[in-house]
Amino acid sequence: MEIIEINGVNYKGKADELLSRGENDFSKIDRIVYEILDNVKRNGDKALFEYTSKFDNVILKELRVSENEIDEAVQIVGEEFIDILKEARENIESYHKKQLQDSWITNDKEGIILGQLIRPLDRVGIYAPGGKAAYPSTVLMNGIPAKVAGVNSIAMVTPPDKNGKINPYILAAAKVAGIDEIYKIGGAQSIAALAYGTKAVKPVDKIVGPGNIYVARAKRAVFGLVDIDMIAGPSEICIIADENKNPKFIAADLLSQSEHDEMASSILITTSKNLALEVEKEVKRQTMESERKEIIEKSLEDYGYIFVVRNIEEAIKISNEIAPEHLEIMIDNPFEMLSKIKNAGAIFLGEYTPEPVGDYFAGPNHTLPTSGTAKFSSPLGTYDFIKKSSLLYYSKEALENIKDKVISFSQAEGLFAHGNSIKVRF
Amino acid sequence: MEIIEINGVNYKGKADELLSRGENDFSKIDRIVYEILDNVKRNGDKALFEYTSKFDNVILKELRVSENEIDEAVQIVGEEFIDILKEARENIESYHKKQLQDSWITNDKEGIILGQLIRPLDRVGIYAPGGKAAYPSTVLMNGIPAKVAGVNSIAMVTPPDKNGKINPYILAAAKVAGIDEIYKIGGAQSIAALAYGTKAVKPVDKIVGPGNIYVARAKRAVFGLVDIDMIAGPSEICIIADENKNPKFIAADLLSQSEHDEMASSILITTSKNLALEVEKEVKRQTMESERKEIIEKSLEDYGYIFVVRNIEEAIKISNEIAPEHLEIMIDNPFEMLSKIKNAGAIFLGEYTPEPVGDYFAGPNHTLPTSGTAKFSSPLGTYDFIKKSSLLYYSKEALENIKDKVISFSQAEGLFAHGNSIKVRF
Repeated sequence: MEIIEINGVNYKGKADELLSRGENDFSKIDRIVYEILDNVKRNGDKALFEYTSKFDNVILKELRVSENEIDEAVQIVGEEFIDILKEARENIESYHKKQLQDSWITNDKEGIILGQLIRPLDRVGIYAPGGKAAYPSTVLMNGIPAKVAGVNSIAMVTPPDKNGKINPYILAAAKVAGIDEIYKIGGAQSIAALAYGTKAVKPVDKIVGPGNIYVARAKRAVFGLVDIDMIAGPSEICIIADENKNPKFIAADLLSQSEHDEMASSILITTSKNLALEVEKEVKRQTMESERKEIIEKSLEDYGYIFVVRNIEEAIKISNEIAPEHLEIMIDNPFEMLSKIKNAGAIFLGEYTPEPVGDYFAGPNHTLPTSGTAKFSSPLGTYDFIKKSSLLYYSKEALENIKDKVISFSQAEGLFAHGNSIKVRF
Repeated sequence: MEIIEINGVNYKGKADELLSRGENDFSKIDRIVYEILDNVKRNGDKALFEYTSKFDNVILKELRVSENEIDEAVQIVGEEFIDILKEARENIESYHKKQLQDSWITNDKEGIILGQLIRPLDRVGIYAPGGKAAYPSTVLMNGIPAKVAGVNSIAMVTPPDKNGKINPYILAAAKVAGIDEIYKIGGAQSIAALAYGTKAVKPVDKIVGPGNIYVARAKRAVFGLVDIDMIAGPSEICIIADENKNPKFIAADLLSQSEHDEMASSILITTSKNLALEVEKEVKRQTMESERKEIIEKSLEDYGYIFVVRNIEEAIKISNEIAPEHLEIMIDNPFEMLSKIKNAGAIFLGEYTPEPVGDYFAGPNHTLPTSGTAKFSSPLGTYDFIKKSSLLYYSKEALENIKDKVISFSQAEGLFAHGNSIKVRF
């Protein structure tokens, strides 16, 4: 990891460099994606079976995962792990229930009722990656908020392995999350199936969940016809620490992010040069012992930094500029600094709240804004699975009271039929 | 207007036809847009002045609108209209304040604090169209929710006329809405200025407001670097009416939508064949008298329909499928049908709540989901100008209690450094 002493100027360039990770020309990938989308739109299930044979190397008889397959997966995973999944579900449910909002109406003025109706989306699709990136936590974190929001039906798509099987942890998590239908479809073709619908797969209103670049570009392409969640970039952690904090803890937390992939970024911002040196040493030591050594070394080399700053205010200023996905604050009295933290996906306070506790278990969502988008985006939540409608009622008298003002306004805009819709009533 | 008697089958095709209005190949436009974005990114204000000269036919000395110009506009508009703008502001403020949500924390379990921080975006840009589509209501409807949400600074961009002037109604509305900075920049170049920043224009976190196709495509191109609002399609109204409702009112409301542009869609769904015939006659009569006759005739011809159905339930089913931007419910006891309305941007109840009352004055936002996106999108609101951060705190004891479960979970996902960040603490 590179240690950089910040003089109050040079951090901006570093922040920009981090934020532009993964900016690319996608035109080649898009051509392939558009072809797949178009083929599924025209040929439905036939195209889905063909792509599964081509990309996943398996000839399926059925796209939908059977109840038997799900029960089998639950057996394989075992009771102990099912109980952990259920406890995680309870925590995730409990947190997300607090995000729910009620519809409201108001009657501040005689004869006028205004309001806002909040309704769940009718049907949602979840993409769950297969292979090495098959994470049961992703299934919980996408499925449970939709369920809590009141979504009527939830379909999950995930690529099968070459034997036509789905990772049992994924299936068990889907069962625990209460997902209604599961299909053995991956890649851009699964996004097409969810967006356009086929004979086997009913179309959805929104598609969520992480995937590879083909999935991400396909989601972007169907956005508008259906809604999509944010398209996540590489993962990030930023740790703000003052002196006398434990370098072992800090190093372990940096590594927990770096192991995700080679593009992941891990940053420590500290007021203590001494701590910076100790963390650097500890990072090297822990990396040597790590199961995912190659990935960690590469991501730390490219996107790992230790910034030494003059004071905590400066550390927070840099962190606000980076707008990290995960922000750990390991300083004395971390709660006192909260009002200064402007941009971060999730904030972990104190020395005993390591980021992984939020990935699986605590309750808040692990789908978080990356690449600086925490400046304007939020964690996935129940608010992503509802839509609002405005409600207006005017009595005849209430409309009469304001009619001239509305007519004046419509004339100022040159929209005379707008004014006429008022005039015609009196 | 074409009258179609619905047999419960053929409405689906009509709905799909309406929803696909405006689907196009944008590759030619995108090439121009990318070139403009790139030029502004590289050459900043110089490019802005050049494009303004090229597209708006005026050589400007300053991009920013001066206080003098704003004061002059307020004079031109006159006190009476300023008062109408202020009353509209009060109504819009009052409605949008009810959308505000508080940050929260919870402490359900010993040693665990979870929460959600809600913070306004720091800086927002608003695009206001110029020329014939210069609508002061658009400035209020975009600026006031941002202001109510607590956005720190709001910049507006709008194209100048060939004399370098901005429509005085637009400037007056910006003043009333409390917009901090106004720039004489239009088209894709203004989106570039807001997204990348130049010497004259500081970059923003989010860009909102309607514009022509170049503006819309530019917004889509910079999405990710900054946030954007929905990209609105052509406007729509759907009116559900039972018998004995006033055909004059209905015809006037249909026309108020049709006059927007030739792609606008106006639909009546009624249980009464007799009312259908009367509305058809009345539409013809009112169109003849209308100032915007040509636009209305074209949009009614292409996208105006009267559906005759067997009962109100069927009417609502069709409306839910169309998911209209504006839905007027002119039936006896309209409130009783609310629970059946699933998809609509804004719902106008009863015979004295014509859609234009919502466009300017009542308080709810007039920026609404179009083209069927009300199935998953919401009106513009204060929630579009905030972002959330999750908050987590575990005490040492609380973490120790659950440590084995988190470690098991991380092992199931093959992310060993995740588990290690827990282990290293005990």
